[in-house]
Amino acid sequence: MNFNTILGSVDFLEFLRGKKASFLLSASVTKTCEIPNISQAGIPGKLDLTPTLDAEFLCTKEVRSLDDIAQTPKGVPTPALITRATHELNPFSNIEILDLGLSVKPKLRYFKTYGFDLEPSRRIDDKASINAMEVFQMGVQFAQDYELKDDYVILAESVPSGTTTAQASAMALGYKCKNYFSSSFKNSPEDIKYLTIKKALANINEDDEVFTKLSNVSDNMLIFNAGFVLGSTSKNMKVVLAGGTQMAAVLLIVNSVLEMMGGSIDSSNIALCTTKWIHEDENSNIKALLAQLKFPVNAYASDFDFRESNHPALKLYDEGEAKEGVGCGAALCYAAINGINKKELTQKIESFLG
Amino acid sequence: MNFNTILGSVDFLEFLRGKKASFLLSASVTKTCEIPNISQAGIPGKLDLTPTLDAEFLCTKEVRSLDDIAQTPKGVPTPALITRATHELNPFSNIEILDLGLSVKPKLRYFKTYGFDLEPSRRIDDKASINAMEVFQMGVQFAQDYELKDDYVILAESVPSGTTTAQASAMALGYKCKNYFSSSFKNSPEDIKYLTIKKALANINEDDEVFTKLSNVSDNMLIFNAGFVLGSTSKNMKVVLAGGTQMAAVLLIVNSVLEMMGGSIDSSNIALCTTKWIHEDENSNIKALLAQLKFPVNAYASDFDFRESNHPALKLYDEGEAKEGVGCGAALCYAAINGINKKELTQKIESFLG
Repeated sequence: MNFNTILGSVDFLEFLRGKKASFLLSASVTKTCEIPNISQAGIPGKLDLTPTLDAEFLCTKEVRSLDDIAQTPKGVPTPALITRATHELNPFSNIEILDLGLSVKPKLRYFKTYGFDLEPSRRIDDKASINAMEVFQMGVQFAQDYELKDDYVILAESVPSGTTTAQASAMALGYKCKNYFSSSFKNSPEDIKYLTIKKALANINEDDEVFTKLSNVSDNMLIFNAGFVLGSTSKNMKVVLAGGTQMAAVLLIVNSVLEMMGGSIDSSNIALCTTKWIHEDENSNIKALLAQLKFPVNAYASDFDFRESNHPALKLYDEGEAKEGVGCGAALCYAAINGINKKELTQKIESFLG
Repeated sequence: MNFNTILGSVDFLEFLRGKKASFLLSASVTKTCEIPNISQAGIPGKLDLTPTLDAEFLCTKEVRSLDDIAQTPKGVPTPALITRATHELNPFSNIEILDLGLSVKPKLRYFKTYGFDLEPSRRIDDKASINAMEVFQMGVQFAQDYELKDDYVILAESVPSGTTTAQASAMALGYKCKNYFSSSFKNSPEDIKYLTIKKALANINEDDEVFTKLSNVSDNMLIFNAGFVLGSTSKNMKVVLAGGTQMAAVLLIVNSVLEMMGGSIDSSNIALCTTKWIHEDENSNIKALLAQLKFPVNAYASDFDFRESNHPALKLYDEGEAKEGVGCGAALCYAAINGINKKELTQKIESFLG
């Protein structure tokens, strides 16, 4: 296993080789996921449970708030399996959950779950009504107060329909986004997504202030994590943003906030890590998203795929049916810099599927 | 994979089994390497680049200060490949570079490079002109100040023509050395080496003080690392000297300094780890060198060889064309006490050669 460099140099990730990581999962619900067919990241009609189930499975290998592991209609298993398999073969030192507005609290003992008194945010086609400034400041404060016991933080997300809110956020902030955003569908449901984003953008004005726009069209994870990035830079904490186009949107939000404030950051301790499926996706372009940042950023993609597997459900990843989530891209990069063998990892993932 | 005990008992290395290591590379240039045919550790005419390229490759798998990986005339690849392969399969927690007089600074970000304002030292056949006392004290001070984040330190070296300066140093200090010193040549260029050492020794007097002798015939790495060993003993830091006859010379210098000062050390936390190629070398005798120390020391040799490989460039190691460097012997011992499989390691090394 290895990784490829999307932007920057190999040095950041090579420096982290062999070092210890704390894994933080930003788990959040935007009711945008209730729009029929907007996402396949979970069980139809119960998509709001996905981040709760992902948190439970990641920590315990058990799904407690439902009888079965989240399965999508076509049977694509949650990427939480990949992250969990990595954790079993070369454990993260610590997993913690950030409850950024969940419908159901994960049923976990011992594992720290940070609460912020946030509710699931509203559908973006009907004004999300987030107090964006407050959520952003929560992220800044949390990063500043966070006592890192390891060498670096992997900051991941689980937000069903999160690519829709990410794209809406980036578009609202004026970034070029056409064909740059990923979806968990192979054949992106452009119509539903497009209509949702179009309706969302109709609720804002071009000259609205950054946080006003985000309040209407974004989700708690994007805004909080952008704050986290900003807060982390003031203390030189090394942060791996674990995700694809959603984490790119987090960085675009940071970029817009900095522009608005006339500020700047030392971004040398920030990197984004994602999957090969995102890096090589023909229907999105993460590099083009990141290229719009005013600050430099390191970005890497794992070279892992399911070529070693014969399991039809896993093969769907290689066919583009699922690409990212629950930090699986960063977990795979972490696997690469910690000597995990591809075959062993594949077998571990397969073992979860029975 | 396993290791053999040259001196002492297995206990020291067995105690380190599974523990975490920081890898320090003492990278240094003595212009002795400019003497034609004195060493084959690098590209003819560019041997002074070797430690820079070794540092770059070890940290990033990239050679940045040159277009291609350092290849010797007969195509023996740098032992940095072995150390890097180990690092990929079971990473050291930390790699740091000690710039003990490099021609070119390694092009690395994030990785810590300690500078000591040292220039490459002069040819020993023309008086090395090192401020040996000062360099020794730098080593002592550095060890005393060094904040070890792991369980032990692996202290390695990359110094082209370093066996020549090591032999000159040991001879100058009055140790029996005949046929005890190793070279990176299979057929040691005794004439060139012999002449160089003879000229070097002609510049000193038998009754010169230890540091006066070293100032003329040694190199920065040997002197600094001897200081490091002394400094480390005052804080019970576990140190693995990663090398063959050069690291033996480091210990002989420590021995001479102690004799001069009438001092003693608790050497129980010091060990030397080297390769099978050194241990079984018929043209050198590391055990005989170490046997001259007044203090006890643990010494080990890996049992790794390239029997599993068919690659002609790697087979040259088994034929005695290359034996040590860039801490490869200690890396192989580290591999042995961390469950790395010989076949997997061989394949990883081969993968670097394309």
